Amino acid sequence: MASTSEILTAERILAATEEVLRRHGPAKATVVDVARALGVSHGSVYRHFRTKAALREAVTKRWLDRTSQKLAVIAAASERDPEARLRDWLAALFEAKRHKAGDDPELFATYTVLTDENGAVVGEHIAELTAQLTGIITQGAGSGTFSVSDPAAAARAVFQATGRFHDPCYAREWTRPGVGEEFTAVVDLLVRGLR
Amino acid sequence: MASTSEILTAERILAATEEVLRRHGPAKATVVDVARALGVSHGSVYRHFRTKAALREAVTKRWLDRTSQKLAVIAAASERDPEARLRDWLAALFEAKRHKAGDDPELFATYTVLTDENGAVVGEHIAELTAQLTGIITQGAGSGTFSVSDPAAAARAVFQATGRFHDPCYAREWTRPGVGEEFTAVVDLLVRGLR
Repeated sequence: MASTSEILTAERILAATEEVLRRHGPAKATVVDVARALGVSHGSVYRHFRTKAALREAVTKRWLDRTSQKLAVIAAASERDPEARLRDWLAALFEAKRHKAGDDPELFATYTVLTDENGAVVGEHIAELTAQLTGIITQGAGSGTFSVSDPAAAARAVFQATGRFHDPCYAREWTRPGVGEEFTAVVDLLVRGLR
Repeated sequence: MASTSEILTAERILAATEEVLRRHGPAKATVVDVARALGVSHGSVYRHFRTKAALREAVTKRWLDRTSQKLAVIAAASERDPEARLRDWLAALFEAKRHKAGDDPELFATYTVLTDENGAVVGEHIAELTAQLTGIITQGAGSGTFSVSDPAAAARAVFQATGRFHDPCYAREWTRPGVGEEFTAVVDLLVRGLR
């Protein structure tokens, strides 16, 4: 039975924080709002997150981590062909972002405000994604699939060149007809460039 | 001598409109504001632009045309090597946008509001730029520099893959150290993909 006597984990606080954000938008989600939603004292929330900023940063990281954890599975499947893995990874990134934006547009807009606030967390997220891409490209360079002298620089270029298909500033474009063909054309061109 | 007896051309009205925008931001630039700035009756402005929307659309087009006219010169230099021309064209686009954003950030922000309002004008601008790129790539395909079956689709992919270096939503990134190297890495990868 759910009650305030449940152990108050950081994960439980973050899930409640996301629910507060979903209902009330980015202006809310203070420690006091979240404590009230959980029916606990704000002191017990402060034991996990010492400031409003720390709480908002942690919930932003959790939101971004959901995407990078999904992609990590593709990046780690080193028995598969690097080119196919690169294409799948980029498609999965596009798909994950498109789902986040399309399934719950208000929560997506709320998180866009939070990511603007938390530049360092976003920077780490992009570094994590680029590291996954670097792994795939390094393996492709080793096997001769790709002809690349600096896999990290190539990964950064691939990530940046596909921004239209994962950067939230393009979310409006993701429901337009033809966006799937556009994505394929860009990825084809980049894969040809890596070969 | 500048006086109200000068012939009131559309160009003179648009130059005054830009000056009103520069001084007062995007909320201003109505026909009445512009007539006042020119010291003429608003009836004489209405003879050229029948609505506030038409005036704001025309000044947005003029702002965007300044970039596409500069690039048209590079696109038209058909005696030059297509690959060098493609690189120059992309560099000139980045440079033009970076200048617009950096030289007068407030006017740039104002025009960002106006371009959001005038989606059709922006669509025509992008179509014009993509047509210029298509011309360069078609010539490169003809001469054997590029190996491309659909130059228009390739041009769209190149334009979209370089969005980070011309789309106003990335203006904040354009002053960061290393952005020049990032641009070169993306362009190198795309050119390799076209060959």
